[in-house]
Amino acid sequence: MHPVATVRSDYREKFAIPRQPGLVPAARASIELEPAWAGRGAFDGLEQATHVWVQFVFHAVPVGRGGARVRPPRLGGNRRLGVFATRSTHRPNAIGLSVVRLLAVEGDALLVAGADLLDGTPVLDIKPYLPWSDAPAEAAHGWAGERPERLKVLFSDAALRGLAACDESPRLRQLIEQSLALDPRPAYQRADSERVYGARLAGLEVKWRHDEAGALTVLSVAVAPGAGGD
Amino acid sequence: MHPVATVRSDYREKFAIPRQPGLVPAARASIELEPAWAGRGAFDGLEQATHVWVQFVFHAVPVGRGGARVRPPRLGGNRRLGVFATRSTHRPNAIGLSVVRLLAVEGDALLVAGADLLDGTPVLDIKPYLPWSDAPAEAAHGWAGERPERLKVLFSDAALRGLAACDESPRLRQLIEQSLALDPRPAYQRADSERVYGARLAGLEVKWRHDEAGALTVLSVAVAPGAGGD
Repeated sequence: MHPVATVRSDYREKFAIPRQPGLVPAARASIELEPAWAGRGAFDGLEQATHVWVQFVFHAVPVGRGGARVRPPRLGGNRRLGVFATRSTHRPNAIGLSVVRLLAVEGDALLVAGADLLDGTPVLDIKPYLPWSDAPAEAAHGWAGERPERLKVLFSDAALRGLAACDESPRLRQLIEQSLALDPRPAYQRADSERVYGARLAGLEVKWRHDEAGALTVLSVAVAPGAGGD
Repeated sequence: MHPVATVRSDYREKFAIPRQPGLVPAARASIELEPAWAGRGAFDGLEQATHVWVQFVFHAVPVGRGGARVRPPRLGGNRRLGVFATRSTHRPNAIGLSVVRLLAVEGDALLVAGADLLDGTPVLDIKPYLPWSDAPAEAAHGWAGERPERLKVLFSDAALRGLAACDESPRLRQLIEQSLALDPRPAYQRADSERVYGARLAGLEVKWRHDEAGALTVLSVAVAPGAGGD
């Protein structure tokens, strides 16, 4: 197996990446063919798909940590389940699977939305999404059957000023709102409402604090040092 | 990467395997954990999913035949598209992806329906299907956007006698009907209506002939030599 493409993404660190695809429609990524596959028409015809499957490597997960049982954050992080019953990133083989919206085929690159993919992710395969095959009408799930709840995201005046100084500020505001609403904190830190959190999103350093009542406030937004913009 | 499980399936040869999952609900397979993963609770909690994703290796496809462009059977086999725009089994990395219905978790094995998987397929990963994440409401596709058409399948008296002699004959009849209705012939043979075709399904040797008008007749059904039943 060899990477056929690499992901360039708004998510340059693991913290604050959504735990499933599709939860942050404002997220943008491009999937760029490796030189060995470029210029050969390998994407011809893909423009007829609205969505694509990406099979990729969890390259930032330490190797050898994939046991048979894991603690899904969805269950509060204190109940163990079989790894194959979860979508944990710590897996026997470090293979991920995400469906993303295809915005455009640009030669040897795909512009996609809603990806939950870290910048630099190696891609093993890309396939078109076929609704009649990939969306069984009767599919359901018990403990993870519903979309995760979202926190309310407020912006301080300082954060709004920081955003206003950016190019693409309406999209970046959505990216921050949609990403933080999913509550990126590890389950065991959810009682600690005093702490200031920081994450890097699309080249921005974003700081926020959780309030008591299912809400958080973005304290500041600034171009991250050394980010070189977006 | 290493196989975590192996598929035991009704399909013991490539010919007559459906080209996507879900098209033959009567197909049964079991997905059996490798010894290294058995007895460790790796499937605990998966019973809450109705469907699972299987990421597997196309082990019967010759290595090194994965070019950048392929001819999908859906387009008659004479138009080339980029390999990543198709679900061809000849891919740069020999990784497949199928959603299957989970009928039961039986210890270290999963009993599944609707698989398009060859017996002996090595499995790299298994994940629960999450409808709110994996079935984008607005997904669509152009040239492969509809379920494939089905041929009408008739059974000769000899074929019905052969079926009646089998255990599980109602399911096996459905398996044969659903598999052959998809027209397993390569596109370039579809004009050749005189030929008798044969395929092995669930340990049975099935022979049929195509009629002119979108129909075929099953000529005989017999336990395949050396099959050892189902």
